[in-house]
Amino acid sequence: MSDQDRLYEKTISSQTIYDGRIIKVKVDEVLLPNGKTAKREIVNHQGAVAVLPLTPDGKMVAVRQFRKPLERTIVEIPAGKLEPGEEPLTCAKRELEEETGYQAASYELLSSFYTSPGFADELMHVYVATGLTKGESRPDEDEFVEVLELTLEEAKELHRTGEICDAKTVAALFAWENRVLHERG
Amino acid sequence: MSDQDRLYEKTISSQTIYDGRIIKVKVDEVLLPNGKTAKREIVNHQGAVAVLPLTPDGKMVAVRQFRKPLERTIVEIPAGKLEPGEEPLTCAKRELEEETGYQAASYELLSSFYTSPGFADELMHVYVATGLTKGESRPDEDEFVEVLELTLEEAKELHRTGEICDAKTVAALFAWENRVLHERG
Repeated sequence: MSDQDRLYEKTISSQTIYDGRIIKVKVDEVLLPNGKTAKREIVNHQGAVAVLPLTPDGKMVAVRQFRKPLERTIVEIPAGKLEPGEEPLTCAKRELEEETGYQAASYELLSSFYTSPGFADELMHVYVATGLTKGESRPDEDEFVEVLELTLEEAKELHRTGEICDAKTVAALFAWENRVLHERG
Repeated sequence: MSDQDRLYEKTISSQTIYDGRIIKVKVDEVLLPNGKTAKREIVNHQGAVAVLPLTPDGKMVAVRQFRKPLERTIVEIPAGKLEPGEEPLTCAKRELEEETGYQAASYELLSSFYTSPGFADELMHVYVATGLTKGESRPDEDEFVEVLELTLEEAKELHRTGEICDAKTVAALFAWENRVLHERG
């Protein structure tokens, strides 16, 4: 028996609770490997991309924005939701330019990860963008952001103080430090 | 005017959609900085902890488990939800021992981050645990996990192949690599 089989939770029934603009919520009843049943609360999300934009002088371009679930502003790498059928790389280029005005000569996939696999299927694709040139930002109509440029030390300080405090940006920050350590050899 | 004021989204009304065991879902109508209104879909979650457990011989202890939102098993660092009022560090020790059987002599906070601040308030506290000693695992009744020990290279390979594919584990992996690079000087 494979790991998948041994750990599998079969759906007995599924109830849609909410079908919104960004998320869909359902509750599944599942059959556990031990024959018992359990409820699983599941949030469906169309997925998202984020970009770690590194300038030629070794800074990261970030955005400060208000996040309603947290009731405060935080500093993050540029990111956005995938449109239906949109390629992640296309989305990454669009979001970087819309939010910050920067265009990048080169994109490299750093990681694709689920932000919270216990209850959500949101998949986040994170790219490193280099060869940046600056243009004009043009955020979405209901998007209000401030653009920042941070050195690695400045970004790490914002992580320590809690202004940088979201999974994709923290992961990107650790990866950026790796990159710098590898470059220093 | 502070950044917070300039970017703030005031709540006009709030509607609870679902109040479940793990998540609560609400839809807020907000007043945007430009005077327009918008809807914000918000998932409330009590928060969670995760532990990067590093063995004396330089391996990471991980767990393979089935994640219903993804309909497959993935490999993750040990993690679990906070009980109401529980201290994150207490939760970290409990989850590490329950899921893997390991106890750790030393815990260090690596990062606290929001897993998906666009729609959820789940805060994840990630610890590095060292000085591990092995006992017996005793997972929750509805929790089925397999325990693995991985070298950094093995873990990076599982990241490349997509078996390691969640935010907390990817962030922990990058941080672990940093730690190794720093130790090598």
